[in-house]
Amino acid sequence: MTPDTVEKTPLTLLGLGAMGTALARTWLAAGHPLTVWNRTPARAEALAADGAEVADSAAAAVAANTLVVVCLLDDASVEEVLAGADLTGRDLVNLTTGTPAQARARARWAQERGARYLDGGIMAVPPMIGVPESGGYVFYSGPEELFERHRETLAVPTGTRYVGEDAGFAALHDVALLSAMYGMFAGASHAFALIRKEDIDPASLAPLLADWIVAMAPAVHHTAEQLRSGDYTQGVVSNLAMQVAGIPTFLNTAEQQGVSPELLGPYFELMRRRLAEGSGEEDVTGVIDLLVR
Amino acid sequence: MTPDTVEKTPLTLLGLGAMGTALARTWLAAGHPLTVWNRTPARAEALAADGAEVADSAAAAVAANTLVVVCLLDDASVEEVLAGADLTGRDLVNLTTGTPAQARARARWAQERGARYLDGGIMAVPPMIGVPESGGYVFYSGPEELFERHRETLAVPTGTRYVGEDAGFAALHDVALLSAMYGMFAGASHAFALIRKEDIDPASLAPLLADWIVAMAPAVHHTAEQLRSGDYTQGVVSNLAMQVAGIPTFLNTAEQQGVSPELLGPYFELMRRRLAEGSGEEDVTGVIDLLVR
Ligand SMILES: NC(=O)c1ccc[n+]([C@@H]2O[C@H](COP(=O)([O-])OP(=O)(O)OC[C@H]3O[C@@H](n4cnc5c(N)ncnc54)[C@H](OP(=O)(O)O)[C@@H]3O)[C@@H](O)[C@H]2O)c1
Ligand SMILES: NC(=O)c1ccc[n+]([C@@H]2O[C@H](COP(=O)([O-])OP(=O)(O)OC[C@H]3O[C@@H](n4cnc5c(N)ncnc54)[C@H](OP(=O)(O)O)[C@@H]3O)[C@@H](O)[C@H]2O)c1
Repeated sequence: MTPDTVEKTPLTLLGLGAMGTALARTWLAAGHPLTVWNRTPARAEALAADGAEVADSAAAAVAANTLVVVCLLDDASVEEVLAGADLTGRDLVNLTTGTPAQARARARWAQERGARYLDGGIMAVPPMIGVPESGGYVFYSGPEELFERHRETLAVPTGTRYVGEDAGFAALHDVALLSAMYGMFAGASHAFALIRKEDIDPASLAPLLADWIVAMAPAVHHTAEQLRSGDYTQGVVSNLAMQVAGIPTFLNTAEQQGVSPELLGPYFELMRRRLAEGSGEEDVTGVIDLLVR
Repeated sequence: MTPDTVEKTPLTLLGLGAMGTALARTWLAAGHPLTVWNRTPARAEALAADGAEVADSAAAAVAANTLVVVCLLDDASVEEVLAGADLTGRDLVNLTTGTPAQARARARWAQERGARYLDGGIMAVPPMIGVPESGGYVFYSGPEELFERHRETLAVPTGTRYVGEDAGFAALHDVALLSAMYGMFAGASHAFALIRKEDIDPASLAPLLADWIVAMAPAVHHTAEQLRSGDYTQGVVSNLAMQVAGIPTFLNTAEQQGVSPELLGPYFELMRRRLAEGSGEEDVTGVIDLLVR
């Protein structure tokens, strides 16, 4: 059999926003028979020209194939769109962003309607879809057997990472990584703010900043080892006491440069609280304990 | 001339803490005649065995060589240690961590005493000193001619990055990069906190987190281009309106997982304030404007 004659799994996609459209193009390009539906029909036209079957209703689109992928705005729109559809026997893959609790509730809801359910969290923006070298991927969680059954089809638009049976884990991993990214963005914003009033080109700071962040990112492996062992003094290079002693340099520099400390202050505050608990010999890992109620 | 017979610049080093000791070893290993002094003399003993000249006083150490490197606890200790020394004709290189204002004041102070002054900001921990592949380096600022004169000697312990004539710029770059790092640590702390109560191994999250941070770090180049042009809508992929719409997913997930939002909340708050100013089509870059007074 040549690749051209291999049967490609047919599937349905609900939602043709920026992300849904990008996903759809990759399945069509790879030769998967694709049925699409979108609330605003105009967004389906270009895909129809590329060979997509356009369904008249979400219910008809769901009826067309066993594998049904949903990529809508939010969890409420998923509920609304699927309300009138018969999900019996469907393999529902929900790529709509949401919380772990929403994913778990949606999984139960789907099961009650006779469907099997995988949740997904997309770690990519639309221009990264269909571009393997972009490094984008989707977290999946739910029944592993279901993921394995559709793995090849799901891997067409971008990479896949299966993270467990709990339907909420894809969303949890998605939110965890994006939360870390926002922390990094906050730190970088503070850095750019510090040079704002100086004769320093932001474009000369940027490569230094990017290289430094990349060099420091592997520190999370060390943090993870400390969290596993529960011993936060393990392999410490700069202990909390030393790091807290350095805080005034950061706050005074911010003040001298006319920069609000509001983005970094809360982290420094937790470092100080942890030190006050007698953890001066530890790494900064103990801050994590202070965050969890 | 073979490398062994090339005259290596003799120099003095004041301060043999963890960092000073690491620096000293590399100069001795590279064959530089080295005079050292430390308040607590015992810390000089091992270096004396390796060939260092140990001075009886800071003043004597300063008198021994034209090039004088200082690596003490803080700016106050630099003032104290150098108070009794004759700095006339010395090339003073201060690697002690401080604020830009401290560096500028120390540069004036040194000049008034007849010395030329370079300030440094060390982007490394002691185990990275003498290990070129560690990626560590020191920011230098002050007279470029002075930096060039000593570049080779200064490059012995670790990499060098010259960042300008303004004596405060080394400290400013140092603080900017470390501030960004603390933001990243804050974000990673939040991410680890989110999985704390779940059956997810921190060591399985860590590589995902590290890879994601590394993949997102180059976003700072885009930020820099927007700051240069002043057009924060340039090349936007996910605009501020979309990103603010996603905030409840982050805050609700934190709440569901019993995690305090205190580390990420301030950044989300600034995103919302910027959106309220009518910047929905922009990137998140506008947050930087809100930080600067
Ligand atoms: N874009 C990204 O960078 C990105 C990255 C990662 C994850 N995601 C996630 O992917 C999902 C889709 O994002 P997107 O960028 O494609 O968003 P989008 O361009 O705004 O598209 C939203 C889609 O949802 C539909 N929709 C919204 N409310 C609806 C309702 N009540 N009933 C029926 N359809 C409704 C829209 O239909 P109409 O065309 O009729 O409005 C459209 O198809 C979101 O959960 C998003 O968080 C996006
Ligand atoms: N270690 C790091 O990871 C690191 C990284 C980047 C930058 N730095 C910077 O490098 C500098 C030195 O750090 P370090 O790690 O070597 O610190 P350290 O191990 O604590 O050593 C401090 C040094 O300063 C001396 N000192 C302190 N107060 C003094 C005073 N009043 N008079 C005379 N000497 C005094 C100490 O002398 P005694 O031996 O007599 O106490 C010792 O030599 C600091 O500015 C630090 O911020 C360190």
